[in-house]
Amino acid sequence: MQNRFSFLGSDKGKWRVLSFATVTGAPLSPVEGLDVLADGHTLPPLVEGWTLHGLISNIRYARSAELASLKAIQEPLGRDRARRAALIPIRKNSAWWAMAQDQRRAIFEEDSHHNAIGMAYLPAIARQLYHCRDIGEPFDFLTWFEYAPEHADEFEDLVSRLRGTREWTYVDREVDIRLERS
Amino acid sequence: MQNRFSFLGSDKGKWRVLSFATVTGAPLSPVEGLDVLADGHTLPPLVEGWTLHGLISNIRYARSAELASLKAIQEPLGRDRARRAALIPIRKNSAWWAMAQDQRRAIFEEDSHHNAIGMAYLPAIARQLYHCRDIGEPFDFLTWFEYAPEHADEFEDLVSRLRGTREWTYVDREVDIRLERS
Repeated sequence: MQNRFSFLGSDKGKWRVLSFATVTGAPLSPVEGLDVLADGHTLPPLVEGWTLHGLISNIRYARSAELASLKAIQEPLGRDRARRAALIPIRKNSAWWAMAQDQRRAIFEEDSHHNAIGMAYLPAIARQLYHCRDIGEPFDFLTWFEYAPEHADEFEDLVSRLRGTREWTYVDREVDIRLERS
Repeated sequence: MQNRFSFLGSDKGKWRVLSFATVTGAPLSPVEGLDVLADGHTLPPLVEGWTLHGLISNIRYARSAELASLKAIQEPLGRDRARRAALIPIRKNSAWWAMAQDQRRAIFEEDSHHNAIGMAYLPAIARQLYHCRDIGEPFDFLTWFEYAPEHADEFEDLVSRLRGTREWTYVDREVDIRLERS
């Protein structure tokens, strides 16, 4: 399974940067463009910029009914009309990671309604989570979203609702990069 | 955090192989010795043998009460009296990984009593789980155990009980390597 992807921020790329903001914690150097490459592709030499790596993995919190609902509604990445994207790298603090599975799940869903909030924006906003906490990366997750320009306001709404949750009090580094297909 | 480890099977090593058995699925080449190295160490050139990699990660199934019990009783790796060890690499099938978190948890603990069985052998048998499904390795997990020679029978009992669980019906590759400190 090809599950490892590289996100290259530089002065160019298939995705053009519309906005680049540090939300929490240490900043990331602003760039003008972004490419997403599956592992195995030769990475172009970077004169200036950064490369973040992430792995697609199994689902960690969703219960079977939630997973069935998600699968029934969600659409894949790469839709023609989805000309906007967002890359939001996130790190959670040590208190989050020290918790047992039931404690993290309770904050994630029963308290913060993470899946339920995301569900409300399907199928308009397609999502993919990349894991990177265990592979020596500066973030724990690279969250990736794709949507049509007419759903940009809904995406703002989704991001704003998630940032207001109790789950987000555990986020100690977050960068928000909005993109448009070049 | 140093969380990446390499397991080198060859004709020598800090650990001497006492027995080497393929339990399920494709075999692994038998070796006579094993070394476990933290990432960053230079790996010696292998003329013959294999190297498996694994990552220590956060707890995936244990609930808070279970985690508290484990932490209260378990002992660390590297105890002087623990001159025996076992490396049991395991892979689970696609049916396992397609399940949602609650379904995997229900099979893991409510049905198979994985933590509860392990608890019964603490602190005699120290354990460490290394994850490798997401990093392109041939196994999903490297399970590692350390114990004193006088607890070898208890270890057989532990392994036998786990292999009899419903969780183990999802294991499609398993190799069992028993070791003694050289």
